[in-house]
Amino acid sequence: MSTQLQTAANHDETIAALAKAGRAAQRHLARLDGPAKEAALRSAAAALRAHMPRILEANARDIAAGETNGLTPAMLDRLRLDEKRLESIASAVEAVASLPDPVGQVIDRNTAPAGMELSRVRIPIGLIGIIYESRPNVTADAAALCLRSGNAVLLRGGSEAVNSNRAIHAALAEGLAAAGVPAEAVQLLPTQDREAVGAMLRAAGLIDMIVPRGGKGLVERVQNDARVPVLAHLDGICHTYVHSSADPAMATTLALNAKMRRTGICGAMETLLLDANFPASGQVVGALLDAGCELRGDARAQAIDPRIGRASANDWDTEYLDAVLSVAVVDGLDAALDHIERHSSGHTDAILTSDADVAERFLAEVDSAIVMVNASTQFADGGEFGLGAEIGIATGRLHARGPVALEGLTTYKWQVRGHGEARA
Amino acid sequence: MSTQLQTAANHDETIAALAKAGRAAQRHLARLDGPAKEAALRSAAAALRAHMPRILEANARDIAAGETNGLTPAMLDRLRLDEKRLESIASAVEAVASLPDPVGQVIDRNTAPAGMELSRVRIPIGLIGIIYESRPNVTADAAALCLRSGNAVLLRGGSEAVNSNRAIHAALAEGLAAAGVPAEAVQLLPTQDREAVGAMLRAAGLIDMIVPRGGKGLVERVQNDARVPVLAHLDGICHTYVHSSADPAMATTLALNAKMRRTGICGAMETLLLDANFPASGQVVGALLDAGCELRGDARAQAIDPRIGRASANDWDTEYLDAVLSVAVVDGLDAALDHIERHSSGHTDAILTSDADVAERFLAEVDSAIVMVNASTQFADGGEFGLGAEIGIATGRLHARGPVALEGLTTYKWQVRGHGEARA
Repeated sequence: MSTQLQTAANHDETIAALAKAGRAAQRHLARLDGPAKEAALRSAAAALRAHMPRILEANARDIAAGETNGLTPAMLDRLRLDEKRLESIASAVEAVASLPDPVGQVIDRNTAPAGMELSRVRIPIGLIGIIYESRPNVTADAAALCLRSGNAVLLRGGSEAVNSNRAIHAALAEGLAAAGVPAEAVQLLPTQDREAVGAMLRAAGLIDMIVPRGGKGLVERVQNDARVPVLAHLDGICHTYVHSSADPAMATTLALNAKMRRTGICGAMETLLLDANFPASGQVVGALLDAGCELRGDARAQAIDPRIGRASANDWDTEYLDAVLSVAVVDGLDAALDHIERHSSGHTDAILTSDADVAERFLAEVDSAIVMVNASTQFADGGEFGLGAEIGIATGRLHARGPVALEGLTTYKWQVRGHGEARA
Repeated sequence: MSTQLQTAANHDETIAALAKAGRAAQRHLARLDGPAKEAALRSAAAALRAHMPRILEANARDIAAGETNGLTPAMLDRLRLDEKRLESIASAVEAVASLPDPVGQVIDRNTAPAGMELSRVRIPIGLIGIIYESRPNVTADAAALCLRSGNAVLLRGGSEAVNSNRAIHAALAEGLAAAGVPAEAVQLLPTQDREAVGAMLRAAGLIDMIVPRGGKGLVERVQNDARVPVLAHLDGICHTYVHSSADPAMATTLALNAKMRRTGICGAMETLLLDANFPASGQVVGALLDAGCELRGDARAQAIDPRIGRASANDWDTEYLDAVLSVAVVDGLDAALDHIERHSSGHTDAILTSDADVAERFLAEVDSAIVMVNASTQFADGGEFGLGAEIGIATGRLHARGPVALEGLTTYKWQVRGHGEARA
């Protein structure tokens, strides 16, 4: 056996051992009622506060190493913790603790033709793997969502945050144990070896679902290599189509908000489609340019304002995550639908219109996880959707789509209550 | 490039072309309302009846080839069509046509904190691949379920039934076209080359979900090789636990029914767990033996009746699909739960008891797709669950579990109706 294969086998063994321990802890969790899980999370939040000095000291070591290794200021900012950020991490754990328990909810209830009572009841999925990058808050956020829904979790954070993640994990485990929950309900991969991620991805039957949280490189690797089901989105190439009937003031406000409020989030608009008959395109485009956004347009868009550059073919499929926007002029709803069908990543697409029939056609025919009328695409977020939090946004077609929170971390079983029925 | 790689690339191209055509037809289907889809299925059923002579002639060729190739009588029986069987295939298509349309159903509706109206609306999944073996009725059944839920379907049937499948497919396509639905909504793989199945399995992004229908070899290959999400179960190692409080007459009736009604179906009981304190084990075991069932027991089970053979370690993990049953004596509910946790395939497990608390603990703690109290495991079936039909039974943990019919062939999108909301 080559050394490489031996190493892979070792990682598989490590993951199998962690999964076994996690699954055993999950069986314990599955039996806890809502208040017990809530209490365990509140205990974990208290432990985060009690461990604050240790966590900040560990974070300082990560920051120092990051500076030595030349991390960008933006990366260092994502990595950095302070008392205020740690307090908001602890509060977020408490907020998840307060969410309604999805486990045990009866989805529906029927009587079988032969007489048995049938109900579909929500249960935890099992063991969830979370693979994430440099934000140490994910360690606590993701763990809280998994535990609230009765799942055990196996975390694998980024190398830049290794000390912070270990300190946060130690606090969570201590808090859970103090509430009588096995600490193995939340495990952190003990190695930062990239090959161990490969072992997580191929652990079908041991890990029930993997959620990657991070940049495109990470998500792409996870989606390509995983044998375990993955809940994720790769791109957020979000469109806003301004219909001829759109209110000009609303169109200006929402185009600005959808693009410029925060340019680096997945729900940020990346392409603006202006209807050829919309009379205020100059106003919308001018506001974006004045706000410092670079616009790249087709020839008809360029004719609106001389400051608009020329889009290349790639621009229509590019997620800029920056103050850059592609702009096209389209002839009516069908042309907009056609553009979106060809270029949308299936994340979030919006129409701005005052025509109710046109709005309903857009909602019905655009096949994205989130379709919007007269709202900013930046609302694509579990918190904004009233879910209390989110583990991520999914653009796959099975299990859960769009913002995923507690319900998406559950599955169901059929409970059949009979009275001695035999099948004819 | 080696010939093998060239062949794989050719198959990938074939699948890509079929998928492209199927997805275009699906977009047409997605816009049809319920009555239009119902009419298309009724037209397909009528075409099946109109094509009856051609289908029976094609089937006769399959039967003749099967006899030449030494198919067993059971396989020939599964393959054989006659007027009565074809009529019931056409009627089954009409029954699916009459089921309520899942597409467009509003799962839930809420108001976002910022004021937009949110609704989750059921939509088709897209293009479904069905890979099946020798029963030609699957061609029509699976196509009907996929179409009723607005999905296009790519069918790949067994080589033994190739002529029957082509004739049934031609009838369906003609019936759909007569109702104005693109015939590409239902496609049959034009080649029987096994490598083409491999191309289907790796067609992630082209085919949205694959459902294998057939024996363990087929399902295992599909589950191992697929990069496309799979809805299936591999084994049905179903348990019935007879609690000490079970009614002896009910236990006898249900043990017989769960094992012997039809031994070859996935919901057939494969292991009987007798509580050490159940007073009528001799009666239950005697009835099974008298009915011609071979019993293989642990030492305590063997002590109940001298006709019980000795179980090997493998027996507890074996799906016999035959008149064979493994039998163990267990000391109470916890021992039964422990046995089931170690050996169940997560399909269907039942308890027989007159103690309501014990029943509820069993329902809560057994983690199988279907958990039953006082009913025969043979009820594990979409029709018996009132779903009208089933595309299969799933034991995975994501998307859908247990019997899957129309709802499991849908996903959802979030529709957001705003009034100009920008995100703060």
